[in-house]
Amino acid sequence: MGNNLLKGKRGIIFGALNEQSIAWKVAERAHEEGASFVLTNAPIAMRMGEINNLAEKTGSKVIPADATSLEDLEKLISESMEVLGGKIDFILHSIGMSVNVRKGRHYTDENYDFTMKGLDVSALSFHKVMQTSKKLNAMNEWGSIVALSYIAAQRVFPDYNDMADNKSYLESVARSFGYHYGVSDKVRVNTISQSPTMTTAGSGVKGFNEFINFSEKMSPLGNADAAACADYCIVMFSDLTRYVTMQNLFHDGGFSNTGVTQEVIEKFSS
Amino acid sequence: MGNNLLKGKRGIIFGALNEQSIAWKVAERAHEEGASFVLTNAPIAMRMGEINNLAEKTGSKVIPADATSLEDLEKLISESMEVLGGKIDFILHSIGMSVNVRKGRHYTDENYDFTMKGLDVSALSFHKVMQTSKKLNAMNEWGSIVALSYIAAQRVFPDYNDMADNKSYLESVARSFGYHYGVSDKVRVNTISQSPTMTTAGSGVKGFNEFINFSEKMSPLGNADAAACADYCIVMFSDLTRYVTMQNLFHDGGFSNTGVTQEVIEKFSS
Amino acid sequence: MGNNLLKGKRGIIFGALNEQSIAWKVAERAHEEGASFVLTNAPIAMRMGEINNLAEKTGSKVIPADATSLEDLEKLISESMEVLGGKIDFILHSIGMSVNVRKGRHYTDENYDFTMKGLDVSALSFHKVMQTSKKLNAMNEWGSIVALSYIAAQRVFPDYNDMADNKSYLESVARSFGYHYGVSDKVRVNTISQSPTMTTAGSGVKGFNEFINFSEKMSPLGNADAAACADYCIVMFSDLTRYVTMQNLFHDGGFSNTGVTQEVIEKFSS
Amino acid sequence: MGNNLLKGKRGIIFGALNEQSIAWKVAERAHEEGASFVLTNAPIAMRMGEINNLAEKTGSKVIPADATSLEDLEKLISESMEVLGGKIDFILHSIGMSVNVRKGRHYTDENYDFTMKGLDVSALSFHKVMQTSKKLNAMNEWGSIVALSYIAAQRVFPDYNDMADNKSYLESVARSFGYHYGVSDKVRVNTISQSPTMTTAGSGVKGFNEFINFSEKMSPLGNADAAACADYCIVMFSDLTRYVTMQNLFHDGGFSNTGVTQEVIEKFSS
Repeated sequence: MGNNLLKGKRGIIFGALNEQSIAWKVAERAHEEGASFVLTNAPIAMRMGEINNLAEKTGSKVIPADATSLEDLEKLISESMEVLGGKIDFILHSIGMSVNVRKGRHYTDENYDFTMKGLDVSALSFHKVMQTSKKLNAMNEWGSIVALSYIAAQRVFPDYNDMADNKSYLESVARSFGYHYGVSDKVRVNTISQSPTMTTAGSGVKGFNEFINFSEKMSPLGNADAAACADYCIVMFSDLTRYVTMQNLFHDGGFSNTGVTQEVIEKFSS
Repeated sequence: MGNNLLKGKRGIIFGALNEQSIAWKVAERAHEEGASFVLTNAPIAMRMGEINNLAEKTGSKVIPADATSLEDLEKLISESMEVLGGKIDFILHSIGMSVNVRKGRHYTDENYDFTMKGLDVSALSFHKVMQTSKKLNAMNEWGSIVALSYIAAQRVFPDYNDMADNKSYLESVARSFGYHYGVSDKVRVNTISQSPTMTTAGSGVKGFNEFINFSEKMSPLGNADAAACADYCIVMFSDLTRYVTMQNLFHDGGFSNTGVTQEVIEKFSS
Repeated sequence: MGNNLLKGKRGIIFGALNEQSIAWKVAERAHEEGASFVLTNAPIAMRMGEINNLAEKTGSKVIPADATSLEDLEKLISESMEVLGGKIDFILHSIGMSVNVRKGRHYTDENYDFTMKGLDVSALSFHKVMQTSKKLNAMNEWGSIVALSYIAAQRVFPDYNDMADNKSYLESVARSFGYHYGVSDKVRVNTISQSPTMTTAGSGVKGFNEFINFSEKMSPLGNADAAACADYCIVMFSDLTRYVTMQNLFHDGGFSNTGVTQEVIEKFSS
Repeated sequence: MGNNLLKGKRGIIFGALNEQSIAWKVAERAHEEGASFVLTNAPIAMRMGEINNLAEKTGSKVIPADATSLEDLEKLISESMEVLGGKIDFILHSIGMSVNVRKGRHYTDENYDFTMKGLDVSALSFHKVMQTSKKLNAMNEWGSIVALSYIAAQRVFPDYNDMADNKSYLESVARSFGYHYGVSDKVRVNTISQSPTMTTAGSGVKGFNEFINFSEKMSPLGNADAAACADYCIVMFSDLTRYVTMQNLFHDGGFSNTGVTQEVIEKFSS
């Protein structure tokens, strides 16, 4: 049951892999709120069976696209406008991957080709999406673009590796492009810095269970889950947040401004 | 026409003085979204004719209270629960006043009795509201408390005077109390850092017109107005932002992350 | 053995209580670096035997002053200029005390008279020192004023109580007064945000040992001690940092930008 | 005339192009303070005549190296240890270049090969320097590594283009590598966020004069110049700042925490 917050709005959602994905939940919620949208993912990452279920359930079309390819992005955005019948109102960028992490390279022993590849997928892709949509004049005024980020952009979490640097770059792109897109088209751009979330992507990181556990105990409200994150994305896509732009918004149960909790400090009492 | 975002919710709104007030717009919007609430203001600041119009329009009761008086606050919150028929879901704190500013004292020539009085009204009152509501066990779980702030808490705007220090204190109270209220009752506490707004309070500050003008030109989307701020408050009171707490949220058209704009830099070309 | 970094400079050092005090170490180091200075503390906090030893060792005069009393401050600063033979080049403010903490009041059960008293001692005193020195035209150009702060001004450490709000206010005063003092006299004002330190003041806080331990394990270089902090103060008083102003400078072994360390995460592995 | 702050220390200084360069001033000051060091620059950027003058004046050796080449860096660092007779105590990274800026590409019309090249030179090179020095076990305990940054990493300055994103990445690398290097070797890593400076690099940016002028008027102490920046670098290389790590340190006359100045606001009075 929605509140018609996105009634009549058109969107593009990147990164719905399976039911655990935040992008998946966003698609379900956007549908409830009255939006129509296109689902997209990298051909290589897509599990057609699963995403087709989501497409069917939400009345959406799936258009595969490699978010690092300008050609694919141009095709995706052009077709999306055709399919949806007009300019786009919202975009969700939920894409991230570090080859160094996957290959088990320590942060002080990076393979720089891996580094560049991970940056391209995780951060530069966000710039490419916006540069392409701007060139195609694809966004409606007051449209809203959101990318998912993580607090490793501000503080070090050792196992997060070069994804920290990618997220810093991503958040900078949100500010920089948000400035230009705001001035030219009143489009706003933000990142949501989400609690660690037990998705397929997250679960690939070393020591992730311990980390989720630590984060839970360091958050006065506990970790935010994927469903709550989807609600927050809806809010950011709605007309009720029109003057919020170029921000990194923590959606984390208070983790970001908590120095320590009672529960955590007690582990240091001996 | 609302979206039922606050359907069935009960609130207390501090600081609706007249139609220019952000709190006034919040009351109108909260009513549209299905909330019931009590309006309150300091007896000395209240213009009964005006606020009674708002009360009538929104089906609300007015309960005067000096937000620096624990006695008044206890009475206000107890009566509000009675009138509204249950625990409270949201509180808006939109209160601020510097005696040094009013009396024309420069920041380097403060009268410290004025300073203390201004701090009590502008910042300590926020702590008092929450301490009282917590003692009365007055907030529902996942309730949301918002205070309005300004970026002078982070950067210097010379004419803002000791209100800058008051806002820093206010934002710290949001974090500190937000931690404790989150752990004990899952209540969340945030501040919204709003663009300079042409309200009765704002217009008392020296050089305010120039300042509004500067801020407009330094914001990629322009200054956010009171109506947009009210929308954002609604969002923060709704269930769609449950895991956002202890944050200071910029609602400013991008001002906070803009170093300079093209329009501004052009004034420095000679 | 010093480096003549403060040769010929005159200062006022607040807050040297005993050998554990950071202000004590600053006095010793300032002496080594060629400065002459006055030592001061609240009459009530002063242990004359101890501070006289420090005075003797560093060739300094002790002038008691209550830092919340404008009268005392005026006397202190005037006499300091006489004793030292000219205007002042540096001031250290190392003063802090929460009555709520001392009396065991929880943050959600403050006594607001205690709150006001603590704010006056811990934060407003910093404004009073600067307002008085400015009125007396007591600072040399490029003079440097430093107050000690703590990261609780940014993030919640539950037992730190209302000192968190006091430190937020203190850091705001550094920015605000730093602006005006910079424009008018090229005086710079900064706060140093120091690791938790085992001083007489620190050891009064509940759970302080656990907290020091946690902080040590969350800091890649370990906690900074009082001697290292004194070195950093010297640097900030020297001519080598002339363009650093209105800043809060973390001196904490990396704690502030560390989300978690390997050592800490391991406690969450079960 | 120095203060022996770097007596006996060994360093590597990247980026001294000509007398305007900050790195050039750092070399002169490091020499005064008793350090010995190697000068390096990209073969393509080096003007041998000029840098040889600096080398002669400071008794240094010049070793050309492309900071994006691991091979060159390995050779540089190995030879530096040989030439200087031991492990390294300090490194200055003063390297930055955007191909998009040089080629006049707008931020919303990037050539992504240019983007990647600029990132490699401006930011990834910093990681490469540290990864190489760590593998060679080249740094002494408590060694200090500094890279120069700019506030565009936090806020948008439209003409700064993709250098903003590069600086965000650079600062993230400082935090991430600072964590690991701190834990393993007690090496500290920081960035200094410097006022815009009239160097050869700076002067290539469009509208740079207007920008310097704006920045001057927005800084309570005025813009910091290259000589003052060199002093601050010396301080960060000295033993007096041992517990400062993973920080971004603003050296900017107060610009970063100034929302507006009297001088600037007056331009908006009509």
